[in-house]
Amino acid sequence: MTVRALAFDTFGTVVDWRTCIIAELEAFGRSIGAQQDWAAFADDWRAGYPPAMDRVRRGELPWTNVDDLHRMILVDLLAKAGITGLADEAVDHLNRAWHRLDPWPDAVAGLTRLKTRYTITPLSNGNFSLLTNMAKRAGLPWDCVISAELFGHYKPDPEVYLGCADLLDVEPAELMLVAAHANDLRGAKSARLKTAYVDRPLEYGEGRRRPPKIADGEFDIMATDFGDLATQLGS
Amino acid sequence: MTVRALAFDTFGTVVDWRTCIIAELEAFGRSIGAQQDWAAFADDWRAGYPPAMDRVRRGELPWTNVDDLHRMILVDLLAKAGITGLADEAVDHLNRAWHRLDPWPDAVAGLTRLKTRYTITPLSNGNFSLLTNMAKRAGLPWDCVISAELFGHYKPDPEVYLGCADLLDVEPAELMLVAAHANDLRGAKSARLKTAYVDRPLEYGEGRRRPPKIADGEFDIMATDFGDLATQLGS
Repeated sequence: MTVRALAFDTFGTVVDWRTCIIAELEAFGRSIGAQQDWAAFADDWRAGYPPAMDRVRRGELPWTNVDDLHRMILVDLLAKAGITGLADEAVDHLNRAWHRLDPWPDAVAGLTRLKTRYTITPLSNGNFSLLTNMAKRAGLPWDCVISAELFGHYKPDPEVYLGCADLLDVEPAELMLVAAHANDLRGAKSARLKTAYVDRPLEYGEGRRRPPKIADGEFDIMATDFGDLATQLGS
Repeated sequence: MTVRALAFDTFGTVVDWRTCIIAELEAFGRSIGAQQDWAAFADDWRAGYPPAMDRVRRGELPWTNVDDLHRMILVDLLAKAGITGLADEAVDHLNRAWHRLDPWPDAVAGLTRLKTRYTITPLSNGNFSLLTNMAKRAGLPWDCVISAELFGHYKPDPEVYLGCADLLDVEPAELMLVAAHANDLRGAKSARLKTAYVDRPLEYGEGRRRPPKIADGEFDIMATDFGDLATQLGS
């Protein structure tokens, strides 16, 4: 079975969330005269995200999109940091920092090569408008935008991977998930997709690498970046 | 309220379905040695499409996407034309002619201008894979792809217009529908969207213009093509 389409995890795989969120928080801090360990704040913001999705997955929260989950976590973290009295618009603007993430240096060039041969789409837990705004700002050359929001399920629920294949009208085995995270790829593999692991050693910051344990041959492709992925996929 | 995003009807508004479908049918006819009035066949194929969507809308058919509706109509028309014994793959290929439509000459340049200022998306009854394949082949520079299929409703049902605004995270009044068809624009207007009519005098063929009756001021913008639309929208 030939791969016809590539679906990309986004946060950490396509864009460098940590560097950008720290920079946005630092600018925010300067604008209100607040001192904080903004790197730790960024890490806490990100760390709050999987448990928030799990609350949706377990039915403790009704369907809540990632903008709203990010905002719930942010409001908590601001309160814990003693930062109060912000206008709703200021919180909204800061929250939408997740729409303004920059791609890894190899991402746009690699996607542009891959697009010549494959249909390329994000397949992210990020909501549809977040992914659309991110792509427009960062110049990500997607053929379309597919979000977990369209299926009312978060990855690694199988509905997301299978829903993506269904929308693209390809068989699961004709769709390859590209991700820097083994748990996402394992979810895709369980749903019969092809899988490509891309190493992003700087996702959690310089010297804070968290290499996943991946068995030999567990994923179809192991790539060092999107350029290497394009070469391995013949495009 | 400022317009932030533009949603485009596709068949007839962005792409010239009739010229392309006739050319595909002629090529098909030559390949099997069949003689037909292929222009009339194309018109019949298109004419079968609104009643087929109405059957879905009335609940006589379960949700059926446009590829499948097109195929049902095509199979009937082939039988009526006495063309039998085709392989399923040949029917599928011909049916996917609707994925291979060419844009009107002004479309790509106009969209490229509009994209600098607005988020641009198709908002078509065509299914998601059809719109994605069409955009990839024709170079339509969408920021994302939105299909009626995502909402399980066909235009002019309000769920489609409101669902599009919701996915883009804009108010209905911040979203403008662009279409060459008054009934589509009236549906959008009822759902509180802004509206832009674009004239496509050749949609039904040379000398077969069907000018709609549009009251003065009924739609927000009246444009002669996408270049004129871009100028009127300041982009």
